[in-house]
Amino acid sequence: MAASVTVTAAPWKQLLINALASNSHLKHSSYFQLATIGSDGRPSNRTVVFRGFVENSDKIQINTDSRTRKIEELKQCSFSEICWYFTDSWEQFRINGRVDVIDGSHFDPVKLQLREKSWFASSVRSRLQYLGPNPGLPCLSEQTSDELFLDPSAGPVAAFCLLVLDPQQVDYLNLKSSQRTMYTFGQNVNGENCWNSERINP
Amino acid sequence: MAASVTVTAAPWKQLLINALASNSHLKHSSYFQLATIGSDGRPSNRTVVFRGFVENSDKIQINTDSRTRKIEELKQCSFSEICWYFTDSWEQFRINGRVDVIDGSHFDPVKLQLREKSWFASSVRSRLQYLGPNPGLPCLSEQTSDELFLDPSAGPVAAFCLLVLDPQQVDYLNLKSSQRTMYTFGQNVNGENCWNSERINP
Repeated sequence: MAASVTVTAAPWKQLLINALASNSHLKHSSYFQLATIGSDGRPSNRTVVFRGFVENSDKIQINTDSRTRKIEELKQCSFSEICWYFTDSWEQFRINGRVDVIDGSHFDPVKLQLREKSWFASSVRSRLQYLGPNPGLPCLSEQTSDELFLDPSAGPVAAFCLLVLDPQQVDYLNLKSSQRTMYTFGQNVNGENCWNSERINP
Repeated sequence: MAASVTVTAAPWKQLLINALASNSHLKHSSYFQLATIGSDGRPSNRTVVFRGFVENSDKIQINTDSRTRKIEELKQCSFSEICWYFTDSWEQFRINGRVDVIDGSHFDPVKLQLREKSWFASSVRSRLQYLGPNPGLPCLSEQTSDELFLDPSAGPVAAFCLLVLDPQQVDYLNLKSSQRTMYTFGQNVNGENCWNSERINP
């Protein structure tokens, strides 16, 4: 049995990178479910796409439309839990943390730069969806994104929003080995930020 | 464009049955993510397994361990949202509703019968996990379920709990056709319970 251990680098990140690699033949391996607290206080849950880590960090990036309900929800309660199940390796990551909502009106130029980088990193086809009608509103026409045009060199449109989740706790479960580990971000006895890991029952 | 329509039977149920059939070659097609409100007020999200509908209804059954955190969470806030993504047909169902927690101490004999039925419907192997150590607590031994024995004719053990989700709203998205429909349970002008459906923007 592994005792509780403490390290400064995020120990779950390598597990996640390995899971992404071993499931990379599956298009849906980059999809996960993001839960938030709805405006009515009820849980809200939807599939989103992993857009990589913020460089030199373990923060998780997600692109979304600023007109979706989750933006209002995250402004009211910034906590979220990702549930990411890898269907081939039978691994589950439950990643809990605070979400930073970065839309075009953000005051921080460094974050606006992250948003722009994520815009250009996504395909022109996926950028087109931000020009479509307001998501979740009644469908008034059969307009599709095929009829839209976007200059590939143009920067992010107003509806484009980058979400950055800063993990605080990661509950990792491997269903093949029946092993489960809880990683918790905190401070060690010297007051330094660190990740604590503990084997828990599956 | 389809106008808003009203019917008494759950119109999304057939869509879900079709999705289950067209994805049935994938073991994980019966897995979905269940979001709840954590005791700390933060979202909580995990993968669970679909255990069928309650007979003659559109209520969704899930087996779980009564010692897991979601039980406490559901007792504080009974609302939940399922996010169910079908990886082959590219369909997503977001199913929001109230969850009934049916453990061995439930007062209603009809519900206790449902729980017993669900116990015997699951494999002996999956029943064994309810005899294991307390899920989520620190791992104190390397005991595995292989060392446990269970009489196949014995009824549900104390830790076995049935969850029954009663859908109130279903947000259906088909990523192949880019069509999205919101199904909402409510009352019509005659005061009868019914499902309203509306095409919304994806």
